[in-house]
Amino acid sequence: MDFVSVILGSKSDYTLMQECLKVLESFDVKYEILVASAHRSPDRVHQYVSNAEKKGAKVFIAAAGMAAHLAGGIAAMTTKPVIGVPMPGGALDGLDALLSTVQMPSGMPVGTVAIGKAGAINAAYLAIQILAIYDDKLAQSLVAQRQDGLKKIELDSKQIEKFL
Amino acid sequence: MDFVSVILGSKSDYTLMQECLKVLESFDVKYEILVASAHRSPDRVHQYVSNAEKKGAKVFIAAAGMAAHLAGGIAAMTTKPVIGVPMPGGALDGLDALLSTVQMPSGMPVGTVAIGKAGAINAAYLAIQILAIYDDKLAQSLVAQRQDGLKKIELDSKQIEKFL
Amino acid sequence: MDFVSVILGSKSDYTLMQECLKVLESFDVKYEILVASAHRSPDRVHQYVSNAEKKGAKVFIAAAGMAAHLAGGIAAMTTKPVIGVPMPGGALDGLDALLSTVQMPSGMPVGTVAIGKAGAINAAYLAIQILAIYDDKLAQSLVAQRQDGLKKIELDSKQIEKFL
Amino acid sequence: MDFVSVILGSKSDYTLMQECLKVLESFDVKYEILVASAHRSPDRVHQYVSNAEKKGAKVFIAAAGMAAHLAGGIAAMTTKPVIGVPMPGGALDGLDALLSTVQMPSGMPVGTVAIGKAGAINAAYLAIQILAIYDDKLAQSLVAQRQDGLKKIELDSKQIEKFL
Amino acid sequence: MDFVSVILGSKSDYTLMQECLKVLESFDVKYEILVASAHRSPDRVHQYVSNAEKKGAKVFIAAAGMAAHLAGGIAAMTTKPVIGVPMPGGALDGLDALLSTVQMPSGMPVGTVAIGKAGAINAAYLAIQILAIYDDKLAQSLVAQRQDGLKKIELDSKQIEKFL
Amino acid sequence: MDFVSVILGSKSDYTLMQECLKVLESFDVKYEILVASAHRSPDRVHQYVSNAEKKGAKVFIAAAGMAAHLAGGIAAMTTKPVIGVPMPGGALDGLDALLSTVQMPSGMPVGTVAIGKAGAINAAYLAIQILAIYDDKLAQSLVAQRQDGLKKIELDSKQIEKFL
Amino acid sequence: MDFVSVILGSKSDYTLMQECLKVLESFDVKYEILVASAHRSPDRVHQYVSNAEKKGAKVFIAAAGMAAHLAGGIAAMTTKPVIGVPMPGGALDGLDALLSTVQMPSGMPVGTVAIGKAGAINAAYLAIQILAIYDDKLAQSLVAQRQDGLKKIELDSKQIEKFL
Amino acid sequence: MDFVSVILGSKSDYTLMQECLKVLESFDVKYEILVASAHRSPDRVHQYVSNAEKKGAKVFIAAAGMAAHLAGGIAAMTTKPVIGVPMPGGALDGLDALLSTVQMPSGMPVGTVAIGKAGAINAAYLAIQILAIYDDKLAQSLVAQRQDGLKKIELDSKQIEKFL
Repeated sequence: MDFVSVILGSKSDYTLMQECLKVLESFDVKYEILVASAHRSPDRVHQYVSNAEKKGAKVFIAAAGMAAHLAGGIAAMTTKPVIGVPMPGGALDGLDALLSTVQMPSGMPVGTVAIGKAGAINAAYLAIQILAIYDDKLAQSLVAQRQDGLKKIELDSKQIEKFL
Repeated sequence: MDFVSVILGSKSDYTLMQECLKVLESFDVKYEILVASAHRSPDRVHQYVSNAEKKGAKVFIAAAGMAAHLAGGIAAMTTKPVIGVPMPGGALDGLDALLSTVQMPSGMPVGTVAIGKAGAINAAYLAIQILAIYDDKLAQSLVAQRQDGLKKIELDSKQIEKFL
Repeated sequence: MDFVSVILGSKSDYTLMQECLKVLESFDVKYEILVASAHRSPDRVHQYVSNAEKKGAKVFIAAAGMAAHLAGGIAAMTTKPVIGVPMPGGALDGLDALLSTVQMPSGMPVGTVAIGKAGAINAAYLAIQILAIYDDKLAQSLVAQRQDGLKKIELDSKQIEKFL
Repeated sequence: MDFVSVILGSKSDYTLMQECLKVLESFDVKYEILVASAHRSPDRVHQYVSNAEKKGAKVFIAAAGMAAHLAGGIAAMTTKPVIGVPMPGGALDGLDALLSTVQMPSGMPVGTVAIGKAGAINAAYLAIQILAIYDDKLAQSLVAQRQDGLKKIELDSKQIEKFL
Repeated sequence: MDFVSVILGSKSDYTLMQECLKVLESFDVKYEILVASAHRSPDRVHQYVSNAEKKGAKVFIAAAGMAAHLAGGIAAMTTKPVIGVPMPGGALDGLDALLSTVQMPSGMPVGTVAIGKAGAINAAYLAIQILAIYDDKLAQSLVAQRQDGLKKIELDSKQIEKFL
Repeated sequence: MDFVSVILGSKSDYTLMQECLKVLESFDVKYEILVASAHRSPDRVHQYVSNAEKKGAKVFIAAAGMAAHLAGGIAAMTTKPVIGVPMPGGALDGLDALLSTVQMPSGMPVGTVAIGKAGAINAAYLAIQILAIYDDKLAQSLVAQRQDGLKKIELDSKQIEKFL
Repeated sequence: MDFVSVILGSKSDYTLMQECLKVLESFDVKYEILVASAHRSPDRVHQYVSNAEKKGAKVFIAAAGMAAHLAGGIAAMTTKPVIGVPMPGGALDGLDALLSTVQMPSGMPVGTVAIGKAGAINAAYLAIQILAIYDDKLAQSLVAQRQDGLKKIELDSKQIEKFL
Repeated sequence: MDFVSVILGSKSDYTLMQECLKVLESFDVKYEILVASAHRSPDRVHQYVSNAEKKGAKVFIAAAGMAAHLAGGIAAMTTKPVIGVPMPGGALDGLDALLSTVQMPSGMPVGTVAIGKAGAINAAYLAIQILAIYDDKLAQSLVAQRQDGLKKIELDSKQIEKFL
């Protein structure tokens, strides 16, 4: 059973990351979610990632803030694609998490998305795009969703647009 | 025929992005490469991306500097995964390219990797990881490469390590 | 009929950009406004810009946040002057939008103004200054407005100033 | 006689700003150029701007580094459009000049372009775009130049492109 | 009559700058205060500075935000010492004002103090220190104030300190 | 009697630094705490540090904001380890305090921890780790606390986790 | 046997970190050094840290660049004090490494020192200060070294100083 | 005898700070210069500052890099005006020194000038401006120097200027 694995560095990341889960659910993509800190529970991360990979995890999404090592740590444990979501908060409001997530050394990529809510949503979309490469139905759903997005823009625009 | 499509915003990005091509070649992953600026040739980008997708492009890698819109522009044209490589150079040395690439709005993800050479290499690895989800041979090559990386660390260490 | 075209990357930019519209209205400068995301609706942007140019759009104002590609994308579609307003918001609060808007490559200028409200207002003034080059009445209105601005400074000062 | 006025905060800005002049010359756009520091010679700036405006200056381009007040200072002296080019150099390599140029208060716009060489070139293009609003021949030259740019991209690409 | 001249770029700077005035008053140092924007009222700034210098202004304090040119502009008009206070606010919250104030070119110093309230207070202290060089009574007041500051630290500490 | 000495640059740092004290207390580590500004009371800092060292202070923790010189100043007065906690607040929200604390010149180390609350807590942990090198009981408490931390992660996770 | 353990994320960090080793040697402090990347060889790091702790490692020093997870990863594996040295290099020249090292979450401290050479030297001094808490001879050497440092300042000064 | 006291945090700052001395010499302003690190020799700084003040030092200029505490430390020791020059160099190239120098807490001002060479020169000018308040001859020299600066601008301009 193919699924996406979503790992949070802290329970406090759950609120923002629910945006990610909603997108996965709206595409009927199966997922697992848990809290497993890279620093407070490295063995837990390691065990989960190994098991998840055996059970069918195809893409990992990791959300963490500050010195966000979770996505990079997972990338070191698996050769499955890892998507990192930098969490905002703290004095530097996510810039630290962004740099800690994206600036990975050669050979250990983390596909990093935007800080915070937009990133939470985009992590789901990127995971779905990856799964959709070999899943035509999912690919069609993505195309359909783009059409919906376009319609939403048009509806949004209608509320304020003025033409001469 | 499945392949990775590598698009450069400027010919000057070629030197750094050869690191990306070398990794793809070392895994026998087929690729196309071309120059197609998001700003100077938007139609060219559009036509290429449509055609490439039809021909079998499964992942797009886009490298650009400064106000780096190329990866985001491609993400808007396809539902295939897009990997963005922020190019260094200019007065801000890649920070502008990083933010322009990673801070995409909801629904249009770009999986962003590190600025410059490490990013060029990691874009290739991330693309290969994505293709390897449904390609066991490629997956085994990735695992084998990790072993090589580990050996390289050990050899590097031998040159300087001192134990008591 | 000459007019200014104001394009918003998202409906949420409308609140701040009303400051822009108020200035245009106070100078009796005609304008169109719509929502058209560079990423979610690139074809919509393209079609609108082509049509607007034919209808008489002389200056484009584009407002967008985060990886703000809208102004640059429009600049690639027209040779009319394009003014970019970086929208604040998100974890980096507009620095990402500023760099994504101003750091355009050679040959594709975006005349960028301040982040947020001051930029929204200044985009209107810059557009009016451009139109006023060949419109003496508008030019006189600009000069008159400067006098008003000066008087406002003097009135503001009177409320707090102390001289020996 | 319509012309563009190019003002440098320091003679040391001349090397980079020659890129601006080359573009103006390639479009047969007339220009004046001089050195006039906002801080070391404020009266000189004032006198020049007043005279230039009377002689036919339609757009001002100001290049300055560090606490770059030149463009903003000129914007306060004229209602003609002012384009600011942040010069790199110094410990902060142009970030100071960018913020000092672009973050103008309400009512005093400076259309800011990229830091350094790209900005020098784009200041010329933006000035030409402004003049071309009411100069069809210039407008056609801009469109033709875009075609040349596109061809250059195609030629650049030919040197490195590989298709399957 | 010797005095300190305090100039605000905007009336909105008054709230913070009252902290500056309080310090001046607590040392019985005479001052003038007014609003005079570098951009919206450059002539007003020029006339005021010339007159103030003739009337006895010995030190100028200028407070401004965003592309804060006021202190630098005054520095260009007088050879009296100028102290710049970067105002917070706006998307960049004072970093723009700090760089626009402190990064002055050779020969035109602005003695810059901290962003915001601490800077407002310190501008007053720096001005008083300057006047105190040749005013022994003022110098003694400064020394006495340091003793008061020390006592305040001791009192503050008493509320929380714990020793073994 | 061995103890940790905690010094605050300002009474306003007390709220955040109570987090530090709580950790020290939970490990039964003795401490002293006081307010002693590096700038407002340099002699007080000097006298306290000398006395504290004689009385048995083994580690110093210094918390300060803005141009945070306190930790560095203490490092210059003692050869005991000094831990610096950058305080948030002010326009730059702790980035200034971080750089002022961590970027110490050769030979004068300050072991710097995160900005704000996480840093306040970690300063205590780092001090305890240092004392635990030669205190087996304390070392065992640290190991036990790690187990508690792990259990907390597991409990946190249980509230939100979903497995397939 | 007590010793300091120095771990490099990459062999390329060796040049700068030799400054660290020289200081340790000058104080006759025993050390081990090896290369062990947090990402490329996480198990190797884990095994080494466990063994080193058993053999007598009292302090760990970790040097890494970019998304520098090495120090934080070691901090998660041991309750001994961990000192992190952010390595410069790459497009962001060490700011990424600094934030990735210092911004650790609660309970997992990394005592972070300056970016690059000064940090390499200070990591050694901080480790020695920690060991010197219970090693009087080492403590005396540190005090003596401070005297040498003071003499060096005086000698340096003599080459340029001028007094009236 | 009135003089300016110039203190360097390190001998390596001498090269840049010679620019400061040249300006002082060109105005026949007496000065003392020495090396005295805030961290490596705090007592030396203290003794020198006390003595210098008694001998007639009217203004202190302090140059330091990285976590630049020298100017702030001197400000805490004297009520004479202190001018801080942030030195460039190191990974952050002076941004750390700028923030460590300018962000002083309430009551302890450091009049901060630009990073590096421009700051070295401006520190001298600001010191001279302060001394010139009660020294008419010096005040006239400053006015004359402004005229020279203006002439230099005109001569610089002549080499490149083009008018229509």
